[in-house]
Amino acid sequence: MKSYRKELWFKIPSRRAFINITPQVEECLNESGIQEGMVLVNAMHITASVFINDDEPGLHHDYEKWLEKLAPHEPVSQYQHNVSEDNADAHMKRQIMGREVVVAITKGQLDFGTWEQIFYGEFDGRRKKRVLVKIIGE
Amino acid sequence: MKSYRKELWFKIPSRRAFINITPQVEECLNESGIQEGMVLVNAMHITASVFINDDEPGLHHDYEKWLEKLAPHEPVSQYQHNVSEDNADAHMKRQIMGREVVVAITKGQLDFGTWEQIFYGEFDGRRKKRVLVKIIGE
Amino acid sequence: MKSYRKELWFKIPSRRAFINITPQVEECLNESGIQEGMVLVNAMHITASVFINDDEPGLHHDYEKWLEKLAPHEPVSQYQHNVSEDNADAHMKRQIMGREVVVAITKGQLDFGTWEQIFYGEFDGRRKKRVLVKIIGE
Repeated sequence: MKSYRKELWFKIPSRRAFINITPQVEECLNESGIQEGMVLVNAMHITASVFINDDEPGLHHDYEKWLEKLAPHEPVSQYQHNVSEDNADAHMKRQIMGREVVVAITKGQLDFGTWEQIFYGEFDGRRKKRVLVKIIGE
Repeated sequence: MKSYRKELWFKIPSRRAFINITPQVEECLNESGIQEGMVLVNAMHITASVFINDDEPGLHHDYEKWLEKLAPHEPVSQYQHNVSEDNADAHMKRQIMGREVVVAITKGQLDFGTWEQIFYGEFDGRRKKRVLVKIIGE
Repeated sequence: MKSYRKELWFKIPSRRAFINITPQVEECLNESGIQEGMVLVNAMHITASVFINDDEPGLHHDYEKWLEKLAPHEPVSQYQHNVSEDNADAHMKRQIMGREVVVAITKGQLDFGTWEQIFYGEFDGRRKKRVLVKIIGE
């Protein structure tokens, strides 16, 4: 069994954003040389997500609005977590969108349906944060 | 390390449905001959889910009603994604229910608790869609 | 490829609680002797979660309140699942928080960001329930 590990670093200038990281994960897979196995891609921070969905700006706008409705940022005083912080809502948005994805590797490729793309979901940005890519297989 | 891959195809006649796919996943596992490892089961479409819960019709009715409350289909015009489509809500419902499950394989069996069953969750049906089963182990 | 399996048992005296199980998962990893691979940690019950977030009591209070808003326990009669049971809401809360986590293992350690901790999320306690830890790697 072979294994591979890399950290991807991000510094998103806004509080929230969705970034397509599929090209970076594909680059990791090429570097690994692994042909059959699984890749785990996870946020290493608890106010961020990694998820798979559509690379369509209208949908990302809808996600932003929808997450804000389900877990509003304001008023920050509604959350007990917000003592010296203001990011409790980010911990909730991340649970809905998920921490991680596991993707099959087949013949050296991400084994994806037509529209599947991997996103980094930032909910409390404006500082350096990272994503882990771990691949196991042969 | 051995690996196995299969696509399961579905054409659900309604917009939304929950289908128990545990027997098909067990058949894949038997075909693979893998005794110890992990199986990844994921929707290859971004308006569908694979999740694990109870095979109980009352609960599925409750899920349907609850998801419709959290991410309503109507009015379709509330979503920017719905330009030539009407399935933005399906992209949201899928995030709540999840894209994928990873299940342990022990002694050639799905290593499940008493009530665990694997479901395909369709949120934008009436066309052919597929699920990936990938198994790695020995 | 090596594999390891263990069940962790819990009997939570209240209906709902969040329990940090990171030390138990680390103990499993040490017992397994696996240096590179992946660990799957999943609830074996469909009214409980395993998730990764912050070990901060204010946040856990916020999660409890937020989940109760998104999927209220009362009135129990609003759910068709609640015929001889009263736990339909627990099946919903578990979908938001998730069934499982997959964590990378690197150099014999859980490959975690600074604040990542693994939690058992109980939504229908007061009886014995269990979590599966499955590790594969080398």
